Amino acid sequence: MYYIGVDIGGMSIKTGIVSLEGEILYTSVIETEKINPKLQIKKLADDILKLLAEKGIKKEEILGIGVGCPGAINSKSGKVHYSSNLKWTDFPLRDLLEEYTGIKVRIANDADAATIGEIIFGVAKEYSNVIMLTIGTGVGGGIVIDKKLYLGTNGVVAELGHITLRNGGLECGCGRRGCFEQYASATALIRQTKEAMQKNKNTKMWEYAENDLDKVDGKTAFLAAKCGDKCAKRVVEKYVSYLSEGILDYCNIFRPDAIVLGGGISKEGRYLTDKIVKYLDNHDYGYPGSPRSEILTATLGNNAGIIGAASLIAEGDFE
Amino acid sequence: MYYIGVDIGGMSIKTGIVSLEGEILYTSVIETEKINPKLQIKKLADDILKLLAEKGIKKEEILGIGVGCPGAINSKSGKVHYSSNLKWTDFPLRDLLEEYTGIKVRIANDADAATIGEIIFGVAKEYSNVIMLTIGTGVGGGIVIDKKLYLGTNGVVAELGHITLRNGGLECGCGRRGCFEQYASATALIRQTKEAMQKNKNTKMWEYAENDLDKVDGKTAFLAAKCGDKCAKRVVEKYVSYLSEGILDYCNIFRPDAIVLGGGISKEGRYLTDKIVKYLDNHDYGYPGSPRSEILTATLGNNAGIIGAASLIAEGDFE
Repeated sequence: MYYIGVDIGGMSIKTGIVSLEGEILYTSVIETEKINPKLQIKKLADDILKLLAEKGIKKEEILGIGVGCPGAINSKSGKVHYSSNLKWTDFPLRDLLEEYTGIKVRIANDADAATIGEIIFGVAKEYSNVIMLTIGTGVGGGIVIDKKLYLGTNGVVAELGHITLRNGGLECGCGRRGCFEQYASATALIRQTKEAMQKNKNTKMWEYAENDLDKVDGKTAFLAAKCGDKCAKRVVEKYVSYLSEGILDYCNIFRPDAIVLGGGISKEGRYLTDKIVKYLDNHDYGYPGSPRSEILTATLGNNAGIIGAASLIAEGDFE
Repeated sequence: MYYIGVDIGGMSIKTGIVSLEGEILYTSVIETEKINPKLQIKKLADDILKLLAEKGIKKEEILGIGVGCPGAINSKSGKVHYSSNLKWTDFPLRDLLEEYTGIKVRIANDADAATIGEIIFGVAKEYSNVIMLTIGTGVGGGIVIDKKLYLGTNGVVAELGHITLRNGGLECGCGRRGCFEQYASATALIRQTKEAMQKNKNTKMWEYAENDLDKVDGKTAFLAAKCGDKCAKRVVEKYVSYLSEGILDYCNIFRPDAIVLGGGISKEGRYLTDKIVKYLDNHDYGYPGSPRSEILTATLGNNAGIIGAASLIAEGDFE
């Protein structure tokens, strides 16, 4: 028996056949085209059925297809409410993919799928209550309570990057000001790095960026800071303080067993999480000996999309 | 059959015998004394047993004793981790009260108890996913998911007043700066009211406060605003914007069916919630037609303590 995981992105749609142990066995990719969504899902279904045929796997051996999709997803109705990346609105993704493949389908927001992936096959296997923050262009998130993805009544939950960090602060794409993601996303770190470089022509960050502001990325400040560059260290400290403040919010709300960080910046590993833990120890709510949440980094990496999506089906086994 | 609800406060400990329909039938009160907690719980047990004897109710007719207690409570271990109000630390409240009464006991933080009270016997009866914010001296909270109180793994959850509203802002008792409760509690509203009065000697708020800053309370600005006083209106609008920003955070995190407001300020009713709904409509995350959370005010009022505590036992019926 196998799971199928489908990772829908703005550029490509990746399908993987996944073992019950969470290993990706076979994959296939199609382009995300600017066509009507129904036709797009027909093409996806054809791709899935072709992959199964090629590998000699019968439909009956598939426990289900899990789909991670960017945007506002209602897992219960199986609809994509709205996805700005894909320009899909009120689209019955689940029912169509079931119709075209004849296989049971479950859909979720991609950050939610990544979260349940880390709980079932990744770093958070031993935990029940987990918050995942995916640090990328924005800050996405997922909430796991008692080993189940929290999906709310109407879906569209866990927009964890869209809580206020600074009332009246930087404008956010969501219509508010001062959202967490405006300070703690990779985009924000890059902006903070560039600002510091423009003020300081001697920082080593210029070397790492090959003297080109356009080459600054989420690693620039971390690389220079690790070499002892003072300006870069200040950028990292400030960035970590923003990230930690948001993490602390989630500690105070959920007191989870663990907070899992995903996305490119999580690759900084202990260098990052040790700083966060130190910040939390100094600012945590409470009292001597109050319960602490572990700060972990995601382990599924580039496979998080497919394995997370497959986990939406694996999670069903617990029901 | 009956429930017993016990509401432990800094000044008094109230006990109520509650019907299965959530009506308080009989009550008793003892003083909260500055004695050792074990002796305090012995006195509470004596008070409970005396009340039962007086009313001719047998222990076997009691489904359980629910206890709401201020502070950091672990409902699973039955211990009060830490209560700054009561000066109790790592205290096995549940086990002692069970020992002294011979009746099953369940304990929770008082704001958590009030939350489950509103879900079982109050305004949120028809909902599954609910966030409650109790606006008083501070801002307390409770999280209900699928009709169950969220208690986390180690308790001490839902410190919903302690999320950042303004990074680096006003100092908070919890050790952070800029917490939601520093801007949205009744204490904060009173501070904001006084500041506006000191700058404006002509505002009607002086009348409502009998020309005495010490008589300003959480109603002063609301009363004057309703009479058209412009300065008071500005105080209310600003306060509502702070409160709404925090509420919006919880909408974006949980997208709950409803957010229930408790505490004195919730008595402003629709005058308050209409303003909040308007603020949310203008600032909500998302996209046209995204699911909205209802904004409700608590209905249990002064009985919230006892009924909420009793609901901790009633909730058990769903298990």
